[in-house]
Amino acid sequence: MKTQTPRRTTALLALSLLSLLILATGPAPVRAQSSSSGFVKEFGTMWTFDAPPLDYWQETYGFRPDQSWLDHVRLSAVRIPGCSASFVSADGLVMTNHHCARSCITAVSPPDTSYQETGFVATSMAEEKRCPGMWADQLQSIEDVTGRIRSAVTATDAVRQTEQRDSAISAITDACTRSTGLNCQVVTFYQGGVYSLYRYKRFDDIRLVMAPEEQAAFYGGDPDNFTYPRYDMDISLLRVYVDGKPRSGGDYFRWSANGAAENELVFVVGNPGSTGRLLTVAQMEYLRDVSYPATLAGYERRLAVIEKLSARSEQDRRRYENTIFGLENSRKAVNGYLTGLLDKDKMARKQAFERDFRNRIEADPALKARYGGAWDAIAKALDEERSFAAQSRWYGFGGSQLLALAGQIALLPHEEALADSLRLPNYRGGRIDRVRAMVKRDEPFDLEVERMTLTAQLQAARAELPPDDPFLAAVLGGKTPAAAATALIDGTKLTDAAVRAGLVDGGARAIRSSTDPLMVVARKVAPLALEVANRERPLEATIANNAELIGRAIFAAYGRSLPPDATFTLRISDGVVKRYPMNGTYAPYKTAFYGLYARAVEFDNEPPWNLTPRWAKAVDKLDLSKPLDFVSTNDIIGGNSGSPLINRNAEIVGLAFDGNIQFLPNRFIFSDDVGRTVSVHSAGIIEALRKVYGAGWIADELQGR
Amino acid sequence: MKTQTPRRTTALLALSLLSLLILATGPAPVRAQSSSSGFVKEFGTMWTFDAPPLDYWQETYGFRPDQSWLDHVRLSAVRIPGCSASFVSADGLVMTNHHCARSCITAVSPPDTSYQETGFVATSMAEEKRCPGMWADQLQSIEDVTGRIRSAVTATDAVRQTEQRDSAISAITDACTRSTGLNCQVVTFYQGGVYSLYRYKRFDDIRLVMAPEEQAAFYGGDPDNFTYPRYDMDISLLRVYVDGKPRSGGDYFRWSANGAAENELVFVVGNPGSTGRLLTVAQMEYLRDVSYPATLAGYERRLAVIEKLSARSEQDRRRYENTIFGLENSRKAVNGYLTGLLDKDKMARKQAFERDFRNRIEADPALKARYGGAWDAIAKALDEERSFAAQSRWYGFGGSQLLALAGQIALLPHEEALADSLRLPNYRGGRIDRVRAMVKRDEPFDLEVERMTLTAQLQAARAELPPDDPFLAAVLGGKTPAAAATALIDGTKLTDAAVRAGLVDGGARAIRSSTDPLMVVARKVAPLALEVANRERPLEATIANNAELIGRAIFAAYGRSLPPDATFTLRISDGVVKRYPMNGTYAPYKTAFYGLYARAVEFDNEPPWNLTPRWAKAVDKLDLSKPLDFVSTNDIIGGNSGSPLINRNAEIVGLAFDGNIQFLPNRFIFSDDVGRTVSVHSAGIIEALRKVYGAGWIADELQGR
Repeated sequence: MKTQTPRRTTALLALSLLSLLILATGPAPVRAQSSSSGFVKEFGTMWTFDAPPLDYWQETYGFRPDQSWLDHVRLSAVRIPGCSASFVSADGLVMTNHHCARSCITAVSPPDTSYQETGFVATSMAEEKRCPGMWADQLQSIEDVTGRIRSAVTATDAVRQTEQRDSAISAITDACTRSTGLNCQVVTFYQGGVYSLYRYKRFDDIRLVMAPEEQAAFYGGDPDNFTYPRYDMDISLLRVYVDGKPRSGGDYFRWSANGAAENELVFVVGNPGSTGRLLTVAQMEYLRDVSYPATLAGYERRLAVIEKLSARSEQDRRRYENTIFGLENSRKAVNGYLTGLLDKDKMARKQAFERDFRNRIEADPALKARYGGAWDAIAKALDEERSFAAQSRWYGFGGSQLLALAGQIALLPHEEALADSLRLPNYRGGRIDRVRAMVKRDEPFDLEVERMTLTAQLQAARAELPPDDPFLAAVLGGKTPAAAATALIDGTKLTDAAVRAGLVDGGARAIRSSTDPLMVVARKVAPLALEVANRERPLEATIANNAELIGRAIFAAYGRSLPPDATFTLRISDGVVKRYPMNGTYAPYKTAFYGLYARAVEFDNEPPWNLTPRWAKAVDKLDLSKPLDFVSTNDIIGGNSGSPLINRNAEIVGLAFDGNIQFLPNRFIFSDDVGRTVSVHSAGIIEALRKVYGAGWIADELQGR
Repeated sequence: MKTQTPRRTTALLALSLLSLLILATGPAPVRAQSSSSGFVKEFGTMWTFDAPPLDYWQETYGFRPDQSWLDHVRLSAVRIPGCSASFVSADGLVMTNHHCARSCITAVSPPDTSYQETGFVATSMAEEKRCPGMWADQLQSIEDVTGRIRSAVTATDAVRQTEQRDSAISAITDACTRSTGLNCQVVTFYQGGVYSLYRYKRFDDIRLVMAPEEQAAFYGGDPDNFTYPRYDMDISLLRVYVDGKPRSGGDYFRWSANGAAENELVFVVGNPGSTGRLLTVAQMEYLRDVSYPATLAGYERRLAVIEKLSARSEQDRRRYENTIFGLENSRKAVNGYLTGLLDKDKMARKQAFERDFRNRIEADPALKARYGGAWDAIAKALDEERSFAAQSRWYGFGGSQLLALAGQIALLPHEEALADSLRLPNYRGGRIDRVRAMVKRDEPFDLEVERMTLTAQLQAARAELPPDDPFLAAVLGGKTPAAAATALIDGTKLTDAAVRAGLVDGGARAIRSSTDPLMVVARKVAPLALEVANRERPLEATIANNAELIGRAIFAAYGRSLPPDATFTLRISDGVVKRYPMNGTYAPYKTAFYGLYARAVEFDNEPPWNLTPRWAKAVDKLDLSKPLDFVSTNDIIGGNSGSPLINRNAEIVGLAFDGNIQFLPNRFIFSDDVGRTVSVHSAGIIEALRKVYGAGWIADELQGR
């Protein structure tokens, strides 16, 4: 699953440095579930292991796992960088998605080979290849530390409160790590309603055992991403080594004999990254009316430029194809989120919940005094943000990679002079060194793209800002957007990494005296960008503090029956394997290998629907009726990639890797009418290992033979 | 394609006898296309053979067929009952859809066999089976008779004008048939803007050569109907015999070697039944706001009843499954039409066209005097209809098959007493005898369904009519809907065909003195129904006459560049084979046999996605990568079923059988953004004939070997 910014477009998302802050903060999923009556479905099913909804599971599925089942499941799961994974053999095999092991697969490729392209299959343990920098964290215990943190926060000023909270969290984390040797982390639930100390055992000798070709793992590419029916073998197998030997013993998930039948109960165990289900209606409206439309406009702007470049020749078409796919994919994701916020029924449910919630708080004078003002405080802060949203959006260094570099350089003297905690987020906590290194890194620039995107950015800025705006004056200097962009890009020497390094190493003096046209502009824009950032900062703190109040109010009103916000920590989500209405008919609950070969033929084997040589050859060996992917109603989001799907016997039935297009609105309001988790099927994995990859020994190990 | 009322639900559509009249009248598709500029896409591409848009084809595709190409294509196509078809071999083979030959397939099945279930393949001409009542009409010539008809209409009264027009049409038709021996028909184009005499050569010795199992032809059943991707072998092959021998010589379509590539130009040649593209905005709004919502409410009412019955037991579930699918299918179609009318962009385009059209008329004093008042006249008549739409909807014999029979009987004495031309449409032109015969026919009744649906009907009527309404008084007689329905259904003897025959044969006297409770009610309702019908009749005539004026105005404003309304007469529609955006990704331009086997497995071979034994066995023989179905942007609608798709060499590349779900709004406003015609692929037909049906001799004949 790729619900985060897609890899190919990261460099292209030249939005204002300071925008989108709200997207990075606070969201929280919530679900009210009382033993048999009110069940607030829109908050989803991302349950924590210290508050599993046993009564609800009992009533819904007739299944009530005991503590040893829960402990076994928790200890069989692991978290890896950015993703989820699980132990799946007695000898330390770890299963995750192909896209979660991408950096390892690339890193261990020999100089003349790309395992991304060819795939990799170790023929024995001796051939397994250590993944540099990879780790796997196994959750050992959870402890509530809310009281300790709350007692450390004594200030009345919002910004100061944040600092006190951060420092209390650091102290608890450090003490835990020192005393236990474990990897400790304080996790903020319910936007600050609860703080829990999570203790992880970290494994750091992880080796690559098997990875298919990226084309098989990410079959259908960006067009098919976030969709279903799907035909992806999005798997990779790693092995955890301890003291140089395969991890042996300890908890792991057994392999199910046949996978899951339609309507069967299955659990996803993994680490969902971030949801926005506890946002207030005002916050959702801000996203709907301000943030997302601006994000989408940015995508459209880029697409218009790239499509123009792409139309010039067949060579250009091929050159920009992936960029276009990537942008379309980002647009698809954000459009999906926005669809949920624009859905009147869904928003009405959200409003009804908020009314009920606020009524419960208003009904109790003590609660009202403590929490009653939180919603209006957030709404007021957002109104204030809305009043300078255009400035916030445009006062920065967007539209050009070169301008962005100039901006980072221009900000250095100012940020260096500040205490760390007062710096901009990107320059805080040691990140200032990363900025310096990044700026010096040699990289190529497409000057035509730079000119065109900067022109588009300045045109859009001019359309939204008043004519006498100081940013426009600084960047345009009376020229048209096209003329200004051309002069800046043609005139700059920042394309030369040595020139950039000279400025960074020359310090404030060199930076302040540079006559490079982009540096001149960046120095004029920097104070404007800082001014906007300083205006936003207290407003964001107000929003965060009041969001915490609302998080606390959740307990007062609903108890612990609602699952908290996604926090990239271990959750267990229940669901069932299930078809859904689609396109006038039904999408089946599973796909088969037949379907993969169908889709390849149906697009005349044109990328991204082409078969790899290995898969083209395997067609006669495979049992084409075996299941490949399947869907279920479990509640997942980015971070869950690589999560195991297990049955009630805690056996592996699948491997989550994506959601369908209808699941995107779940970021804010969960629904399982048509939204689905998409997983690789356990039986398909075995079939592919044996028949396509000649990896019978690995299949045997998974099946415990 | 099944865009008409689906077969399984015909008996269930117990709507008021007199409602939906507007749906049966007048629609007309139109397209403005000037040689290189304004192209009014929303009027579609259903061109007549006497006005092919040669310049537009030349400009768009670089293709300008000559007259002999057009004549050859026209003479290779035939019309059969309710469908389209074409000659496809030198020996008189005719290709159409399986669902177009259904009645023949059933009729020629031996007593102990259903060819619908087993399929049928003649192993030689000797085994071909004559289809009772089947005919095929080949269009010989077209003559404009507008002047002759217009000069016959001299009255000023709208109802009288209609009668004069009808009688002029009859006279022309009869004279033509007498003098030529051909099957002659006067066709009304542009809602009466043009009348053309179509002369057909009729072939009436048609024999069944080959038909697959219905399960293979209608694979995916009602759920997959109106959708794509699709995997249907919806074909049947007939042979035309002349004087007891296969038709030999004459025009026919050759078979293409490979079918059509993506983006290739293809033509559909066939007989689209009915479209509503020339409706005024007021008419579309009436459909949107009054007619369709009532139709959908009727489906929902039926579904609620049937789903309740279905939920009682597994046996009931199976028993009602097809009925539910059928109703869901009708709902899908009407929802699709309504989607177009509710689409603000589409309606805005329609409004913009109407404004432009009216402006052109208003700009010319002569045109204004003749046509300028037509739009407002229609709007006024519709406002009047709207004022008693509830009465029109409920004053009748809906909700129960038995009540509908009682109503037909009760109306007989009144209708018998009238001159034919003054009768209700269903009793006019000899149809009164059909009513008598139908009423006497023996048939079974499900009394529980009768009670429940009548109850639901009466509940809905009571919710929409005022409390003192005379219809409610007549039917309910003070009881609740449930009590009234139970008393009527339990008390009637009309379940007995002999009782009904006795009433019909006993004449007015028997009918007027019957004490059967349903007859008593029907006699009270009949005058109410007649009163509503009489109120509607002049309004419908006003609408029809003014629609004709608008049709004439089309010429004045746009010339003959717009294709006329669909009239179940021969058209040629251009389009290209093309993928489309769907479900967040793309639907491929074609499907392959792989996909059929995929879908079967993906639903665990559960009906309606099960494979027939023949197809299950054939999997190892087939080249699964061969194309099965494909999509193109041609403009079709019900009646086009069985139309050939040909390339620019007039070779068969496919066989149209349906549209995707996105094509449904095309009924009113054409768009080829995502709407598509769905066809069986010519290469898939050959592959199936050779490998699944062992019909190599037929494949050889098609391929001219």
